Amino acid sequence: MAIIRKKTGNFLEDFTIGQVLRHKVGKTVTEGLVNAFTEFSMTTNPLHKNRRYARAYGFRDMILPPGLVMAVVFSQSVEDISENARANLEYVDMRFGAPVYIGDTIESTSVVLGVTPSSRDPSLGVVHVQTTGRNQHDDVVLTYERKVQVWKLDREATVTKAAMAAPPVACELVLPPYDAATPYGALRHLSNADTYFEDFTVGDTIEHSRGRTMTSEHIALTAMLDNTSQVHCNQHMIDQNPERYVGGQLIIFGGIPFNLCLGLSSPDIADNSLGDIVYRTGRHSAPLFAGDTVFASTDITGAREFSGRPDLGVLDTILRGHKFVTRDGASEKVEIFYLERSLAIKRRSHYA
Amino acid sequence: MAIIRKKTGNFLEDFTIGQVLRHKVGKTVTEGLVNAFTEFSMTTNPLHKNRRYARAYGFRDMILPPGLVMAVVFSQSVEDISENARANLEYVDMRFGAPVYIGDTIESTSVVLGVTPSSRDPSLGVVHVQTTGRNQHDDVVLTYERKVQVWKLDREATVTKAAMAAPPVACELVLPPYDAATPYGALRHLSNADTYFEDFTVGDTIEHSRGRTMTSEHIALTAMLDNTSQVHCNQHMIDQNPERYVGGQLIIFGGIPFNLCLGLSSPDIADNSLGDIVYRTGRHSAPLFAGDTVFASTDITGAREFSGRPDLGVLDTILRGHKFVTRDGASEKVEIFYLERSLAIKRRSHYA
Amino acid sequence: MAIIRKKTGNFLEDFTIGQVLRHKVGKTVTEGLVNAFTEFSMTTNPLHKNRRYARAYGFRDMILPPGLVMAVVFSQSVEDISENARANLEYVDMRFGAPVYIGDTIESTSVVLGVTPSSRDPSLGVVHVQTTGRNQHDDVVLTYERKVQVWKLDREATVTKAAMAAPPVACELVLPPYDAATPYGALRHLSNADTYFEDFTVGDTIEHSRGRTMTSEHIALTAMLDNTSQVHCNQHMIDQNPERYVGGQLIIFGGIPFNLCLGLSSPDIADNSLGDIVYRTGRHSAPLFAGDTVFASTDITGAREFSGRPDLGVLDTILRGHKFVTRDGASEKVEIFYLERSLAIKRRSHYA
Repeated sequence: MAIIRKKTGNFLEDFTIGQVLRHKVGKTVTEGLVNAFTEFSMTTNPLHKNRRYARAYGFRDMILPPGLVMAVVFSQSVEDISENARANLEYVDMRFGAPVYIGDTIESTSVVLGVTPSSRDPSLGVVHVQTTGRNQHDDVVLTYERKVQVWKLDREATVTKAAMAAPPVACELVLPPYDAATPYGALRHLSNADTYFEDFTVGDTIEHSRGRTMTSEHIALTAMLDNTSQVHCNQHMIDQNPERYVGGQLIIFGGIPFNLCLGLSSPDIADNSLGDIVYRTGRHSAPLFAGDTVFASTDITGAREFSGRPDLGVLDTILRGHKFVTRDGASEKVEIFYLERSLAIKRRSHYA
Repeated sequence: MAIIRKKTGNFLEDFTIGQVLRHKVGKTVTEGLVNAFTEFSMTTNPLHKNRRYARAYGFRDMILPPGLVMAVVFSQSVEDISENARANLEYVDMRFGAPVYIGDTIESTSVVLGVTPSSRDPSLGVVHVQTTGRNQHDDVVLTYERKVQVWKLDREATVTKAAMAAPPVACELVLPPYDAATPYGALRHLSNADTYFEDFTVGDTIEHSRGRTMTSEHIALTAMLDNTSQVHCNQHMIDQNPERYVGGQLIIFGGIPFNLCLGLSSPDIADNSLGDIVYRTGRHSAPLFAGDTVFASTDITGAREFSGRPDLGVLDTILRGHKFVTRDGASEKVEIFYLERSLAIKRRSHYA
Repeated sequence: MAIIRKKTGNFLEDFTIGQVLRHKVGKTVTEGLVNAFTEFSMTTNPLHKNRRYARAYGFRDMILPPGLVMAVVFSQSVEDISENARANLEYVDMRFGAPVYIGDTIESTSVVLGVTPSSRDPSLGVVHVQTTGRNQHDDVVLTYERKVQVWKLDREATVTKAAMAAPPVACELVLPPYDAATPYGALRHLSNADTYFEDFTVGDTIEHSRGRTMTSEHIALTAMLDNTSQVHCNQHMIDQNPERYVGGQLIIFGGIPFNLCLGLSSPDIADNSLGDIVYRTGRHSAPLFAGDTVFASTDITGAREFSGRPDLGVLDTILRGHKFVTRDGASEKVEIFYLERSLAIKRRSHYA
């Protein structure tokens, strides 16, 4: 007869270089998830919301927005990688592969690439992983690296710094071919007229006009993603030890502002995009809490040919999220999210 | 290199008579949307919730409740028509057509029928539009006119009063035929026994017994409808200029109480209805905020033959929503919604 | 011309022994409902979330978690049985039958087994019912008894104590057969490695490590279940008469903590379960309110052979939910839920 309280997730001392973690449960994407998230994010790209449009573009059905694919795969890795994390530090080389449809089943695996104990705080360290999500046909839908600050369970445990190179993962954005016989122009009123590849000027910054106030809804949204981290949903735990947790309150899961910032940028940047290609690096610059209103802006940093696809161009951008905080009676703009983002944008010459 | 902040939506001076606005994005109705909204509204008509019942009645599947059809089409028009509105003034001649099913794709168009600058406030005026929603087969599912108070972008812009007649739009409620061979009576326990056409008395007022407290959920519900108006979701914007916005807080999108009042009336009025036919006029008499509890009542104003359908009758009603506000320590009943509503109600003689 | 306010639901004096109530509306299970609830509950059993896994196990598709089946059937009985209840007292002999899939239509019936007026409070009494839910093929999916404290409408009405035995309802857990040719082991990484039948020790208590803070989301979740009880959603009603209602605030529908406690126990108890068999008895020991954080623990009380299924064992448990309440400055653990629960658990010998 015993009272048992199982350890949930891994702590810093549990990770070893090269370790492969096949994440549990998996997730079949439902119309419920897509409704909750696609709409939450306020995306305006019809590929995510209008079946008639998505099919005309050669997709089998509406496709999930990139932020939702990211949030699903990321969340599957939480128990094994970051259930005991203090903070998520960085996303690196996040690449999209096959489109994800309603009904697809996504399962994910991570490889441990590095472990680095903190030189400042003996109770912490950084874990570096590569996470890859696949659908039921074993097609890669997303792969990325991330660095995360993880607690030790035993503060005295010895952790040695170690690292290895990321194994190559074949993952390139899968797009339907351009079909000269399709009357794409008949659908052009469904997206903005000024967001084709020809419309962007490198060096411009676009401040997206809409904002969105977050509520305690974030707890349910996080659960819908199967993210099990307690810092997003267990207020009692935080109340027992508020100084251990950023802000002393429930912190909103990073996947939420990640999705929201992508969505807020959508009418200006991405509603004529066929897909996000890669996020070179990204980070949550500051925490987000219920009650905050999220805004976003995009810097246009590059515009390139899309090899083999004269109908498309690659747009390189920096997407930033921000909120306003009142300090000493003055409202101050605080960056909460930073993402180097490249998209495949339609050319007006071919589509409108 | 420039900092760009695009104009979102139209302002009073942007509208011209006869202008046709084909609204963006479109929406494929998912099981997620239907779950969130049908259940939110508390409707008790099995046609919206029970596939077995809907099919026995000759529908292909469960059908969307009328309020949800309205909210989807209306929301598609928001960016072009009322993103920069101060208040929605009136719905006129809102008629329902083909039933809407899960999986249908709805797209909408508006025609500008009138523009009237305010004689009192030079920064405002009224726009009058006719909006029509169609499914993927180009069947009209809804058409209506509305009048909305819209801000000018440039207070000095000259706006001339102009108006035109609404073009005719063929839109009549599409119903499956009555089938004498169907044992409808075997399903009669699934709806109320006292809400058949024979049960209503002109002149009666029915106070619906249930109420529903609204929460900040309204922000997410509004986003699910693709309604982009910032007054429903951007608290920061309101905090910058509270006196510009009704109530100085996030106002709940009218489509929400519209749905909720229909739903609250359902067990007394509409659970033996095959469909709402027309809303002659409607308006939001007072704003609704998170924390308010919504109630509804229905006046029975008429009971008529349904031409060509001896199995049905037309019930004319006035649906009112209200809430209670505490003023000087006393609770006061405030009307928030008014809708002249005609429904196609089953006759007990044919169905029970 | 009259002002009508219909009676909603039954009061104590309306119930008679042997009375059969066929509940209204019915419900087709959508992907929206499953997303909202399965994820809310935080269950980690892949049978509820991963189509690939569920099919490999011989199910036609992902199956609803037992708590959601219970919440759907129970809610259908609310208007007739407990719309006018003060408190739900006890669940008895709750047995599961056919698995429930997305797309199934559930309809429910109750039989009145007993009515007992309160000896202490003449305005109250206890109603004892047996409720059974069936799918569109008339297969029983759930049957159970419950006892509920119901208000009288007329305090002076005479109610005589009466009771009858529960009629037998054939309802046993329907499971796909074990198939020696299926490579179950290839999926073993999707569930925990230490929750097979062989892993449990009678006498142990497992304190589940995760907690979940409830928000006002409970109002919408309750509406999604079609539970019409006003004590969960009508704050105005409670404000008019706070001493009549437990806690003077909206009480969270019991189906919500019921689901959540099952979900919180899932990674330790049920992620290698093929189904819940029976809940011998259960009760809500204390009310739950928005803002409370819910925790759970499980006592292992028995481990038995599953007759005819050498691949499975029956695990008998007591699932408890609790929350913490601050009294006199000290945090106190309060039991909110108690459930005697038997599950069909996979044996490692056959599945891993």
